[in-house]
Amino acid sequence: MVSMDFGSILIMLVVLIVLARAGSRVFDHFGVPGLIGEIVIGIVIANLVIGDWSLLGTLGISTGDDPSQNYEVVEIFAELGVIFLLFSVGLETKVKDLISVGKAAMLVAVLGVIIPFIAGFALIQVYDGNIHHAMFMGSAMVATSVGITARVIKDMRLMNSRESRIIIGAAVIDDILGMIVLAIVVGMTVSGEMSVSNIFVITAEAVLFVIAILAVALVAVPRIYGYFERRNRERFDRTGESHSGVNKLILAIAVCLGLSWFADMIGLAAIIGAFLGGMLLAEYAWEWKLEEKIEAITTLFISFFFLNVGMQVNLETLTSVPVIALAAAIILLAVISKYLGCSWGAKIGDRSLSKDSRSIIGFGMIPRGEVGIIVASIGLASGAMSSELYAVVVLMAVATTIIAPPLFARAFRKKYPTEYKLTQDDLV
Amino acid sequence: MVSMDFGSILIMLVVLIVLARAGSRVFDHFGVPGLIGEIVIGIVIANLVIGDWSLLGTLGISTGDDPSQNYEVVEIFAELGVIFLLFSVGLETKVKDLISVGKAAMLVAVLGVIIPFIAGFALIQVYDGNIHHAMFMGSAMVATSVGITARVIKDMRLMNSRESRIIIGAAVIDDILGMIVLAIVVGMTVSGEMSVSNIFVITAEAVLFVIAILAVALVAVPRIYGYFERRNRERFDRTGESHSGVNKLILAIAVCLGLSWFADMIGLAAIIGAFLGGMLLAEYAWEWKLEEKIEAITTLFISFFFLNVGMQVNLETLTSVPVIALAAAIILLAVISKYLGCSWGAKIGDRSLSKDSRSIIGFGMIPRGEVGIIVASIGLASGAMSSELYAVVVLMAVATTIIAPPLFARAFRKKYPTEYKLTQDDLV
Repeated sequence: MVSMDFGSILIMLVVLIVLARAGSRVFDHFGVPGLIGEIVIGIVIANLVIGDWSLLGTLGISTGDDPSQNYEVVEIFAELGVIFLLFSVGLETKVKDLISVGKAAMLVAVLGVIIPFIAGFALIQVYDGNIHHAMFMGSAMVATSVGITARVIKDMRLMNSRESRIIIGAAVIDDILGMIVLAIVVGMTVSGEMSVSNIFVITAEAVLFVIAILAVALVAVPRIYGYFERRNRERFDRTGESHSGVNKLILAIAVCLGLSWFADMIGLAAIIGAFLGGMLLAEYAWEWKLEEKIEAITTLFISFFFLNVGMQVNLETLTSVPVIALAAAIILLAVISKYLGCSWGAKIGDRSLSKDSRSIIGFGMIPRGEVGIIVASIGLASGAMSSELYAVVVLMAVATTIIAPPLFARAFRKKYPTEYKLTQDDLV
Repeated sequence: MVSMDFGSILIMLVVLIVLARAGSRVFDHFGVPGLIGEIVIGIVIANLVIGDWSLLGTLGISTGDDPSQNYEVVEIFAELGVIFLLFSVGLETKVKDLISVGKAAMLVAVLGVIIPFIAGFALIQVYDGNIHHAMFMGSAMVATSVGITARVIKDMRLMNSRESRIIIGAAVIDDILGMIVLAIVVGMTVSGEMSVSNIFVITAEAVLFVIAILAVALVAVPRIYGYFERRNRERFDRTGESHSGVNKLILAIAVCLGLSWFADMIGLAAIIGAFLGGMLLAEYAWEWKLEEKIEAITTLFISFFFLNVGMQVNLETLTSVPVIALAAAIILLAVISKYLGCSWGAKIGDRSLSKDSRSIIGFGMIPRGEVGIIVASIGLASGAMSSELYAVVVLMAVATTIIAPPLFARAFRKKYPTEYKLTQDDLV
């Protein structure tokens, strides 16, 4: 019990929570979504070096190849934060609502994958002519990180809008497609060949997982619930005890973390499992008072996710003019290609959507967050990507994450002027 | 962001949460406080070895000198769990109520420190005649770990009983006294001399810290609150906006972790800081709905604390007859000396307390938990304690933690037969 310097972890947590909150308040005050403030604070923390002194060092956070214990705590909190965030989004999403937007979500996802891939591939093919580089950049442009968008949707209390449902549904499908693209690219680049059976297995696993969860949510969960409901009623008639014996919050936490693990194990993002887990319990979330409890847990963790996004930015990489120019081009392309792909998908998928709604969907899918960085780091580890391009992908992931929320929030506010109320205090 | 095997951490968390819950339910079913079940599950997890296979290994938890990342997560969750638990106890404790039991709490603490110290010292002096061993054993017998008792009090919803307040107040004072005893023993054993000025500084720091918090709670907090209250009312009159701009939960988390860090830094237990932090906000806990939110966070973490207590037990140390005999004697002495010291202190300190009430207080102070283990590990590291005696202290700490709750719960139930309702489901 005494193997770690817990005091150092405690003070780091306090400093980070207070700084994140301050950043969030300042940005919020100027009408910019507070999470951008948290990301900016993360960038400042990671890059504040005065002579020999650095804020990271003072906080005991060393990142890089041999991260310190304190940085591991930041990473764990960040990951748990986005897992619980997506779980709470799932708690507000009923399966039927998601299925009702299925066709639109599918087209948004497919076009939102194809167009950014082509854009990234083409630009790097022209830039340095290395087909491996080009394929990894294409893959890194594909995956949407729905955590950022989910936070904005939750902040604005617009979980039940049709646009929100299409975005969330498309993000789930997008993640499966992104995984397939990555499998193809890794297969072709690293081993020099593409194993069709391997790709088929990965695809089948992911699709089966999602279908299985949907089926369980629609068929099994109501029956299990009904069984316990009846049993408790019978016991109540017999003994007068109303105590059901199941702690709902612990059940919810176990479902959330269990499905996150399972999704991670089969190669999907953990947050997709968390979202599906929330959806499993969505019918009972209100009755069990799950939402406010999960929100309290999310509050403790979530700022670390946004801080950590910012902490990935190494401002030193921004000193070479060609890298800056390339990064600017990639960022621009990442924003435009995703917006066009997704809003076009929305147009084909659901003719009833207005232009404003298509904009919301297009903007909502822009953030790449950590998913693009993970793709690039696989490329870097396998030698199929240069460290220069890796830095560009990190900048692209962070920049799309910063650019999207204000555009997205503004589009939402335009469409729903009265329902909108973006106050940080309401958040949790 | 990809430096850790997060999948392995997720599945470990799920397995531990589910096992702890199962253990808790089984023990609860047989009328034993559920936390004992969690401790027993911890013992089983740490000792389940079949041939080359061990459950710890499968879960990726290696403890010992070079703990694995997964075990560090368990430790952090355990520590945060007991911190948030004591914070929520503080949230239910108003300063005035605590001061009203001051005299009784002081006497309970003082006699509850002196008598166990003498008992432990005398036994080891007779056993092996080594005065350093004897002094460390005496110190390890002193400190009460209020986490266990706090959980039982919360489970039974008896936070507002006079006995509970005396126990909590005595635990705070006990921790300060324990720290002073440890400073004296370390000074005399390790450096061979005792620095009076050093002890004076430590004592003054601890006492000043507690007094400062009490003063802030009584004087400063109501004024700060009043100021913001007025400002918000004026703004509401002016603009119609009721939004105060301060996220109360984040404020509470920052106060909790900040004071935990500060207490740790000046040499007190972190949980004492957490408790005092909760007390600072006790007057507003209900209005800000803090209790249910902090309880949700506690639920996520707290089982890891009890699991980790159990995981300290190495059943292999229980193979030598002299060690078993010594451990049995120390455990018996630890239970009896604390019970007698504290119930005697309660008798002198508050003549109005009934025999039942004195029993509750005596039993409530028995658990040593992690504090005794920390004392012993300091002794072990400085060479003033043998590894055999260290194993005995660990057994004593775990055994007192297991023995106390049923006795305590039964005494409470006897005194408050109607108010009592011990259901795990109510817990959080």
